[in-house]
Amino acid sequence: MSLTKGKCEACNIDAPLVSDAEKEKFMIELDNWQIISVEGIEQLHKVFMFDTYQDAMKFSQTVAVLADHEDHHPKIVLEWGKVEVFWWTHKIKGLHKNDFICAAKTDQI
Amino acid sequence: MSLTKGKCEACNIDAPLVSDAEKEKFMIELDNWQIISVEGIEQLHKVFMFDTYQDAMKFSQTVAVLADHEDHHPKIVLEWGKVEVFWWTHKIKGLHKNDFICAAKTDQI
Repeated sequence: MSLTKGKCEACNIDAPLVSDAEKEKFMIELDNWQIISVEGIEQLHKVFMFDTYQDAMKFSQTVAVLADHEDHHPKIVLEWGKVEVFWWTHKIKGLHKNDFICAAKTDQI
Repeated sequence: MSLTKGKCEACNIDAPLVSDAEKEKFMIELDNWQIISVEGIEQLHKVFMFDTYQDAMKFSQTVAVLADHEDHHPKIVLEWGKVEVFWWTHKIKGLHKNDFICAAKTDQI
């Protein structure tokens, strides 16, 4: 199943972190996302580059609207010419399948 | 003169960093901004808290529109319930009067 066909589901504190096997499988579907560790918490991270500030603004706004629609909220960092997006699941302090779904949807924007 | 009445001016590489005396004067006019050092570069930083993601989205979007209008572009970090804003002047690797003007205008939003 393609990640982009998934829908973020409300995640509770008992939801499972993705396994290493799942991570490997999902990462193949994603374009250039990295798994980084921030204070011991794994996060999906990607930098998107833009020629103009307005393009970067529009992109970050669209990601935020997607996030609100999915009820799953990433960290979005807007600077001149670039936008960084970080997806992870606060409640379980790591990566849930939701995060990979949202990363794949971010690439579709 | 109130900072909010100032207008950001295009900043070139020879523009002066603010002096310690100016910093002190300008900081009195600002509400709860901090001067932080990021990799040796001074930046003005403030965290704005919100009850909803939509309010945080709207605020970050409005700051971005202000930035584009002033042609001076901060780092804006949007997360659930909060927005962090960082103003500094890339070309001079530190704080210019512009940054204090833009911080004051951010507070007016």
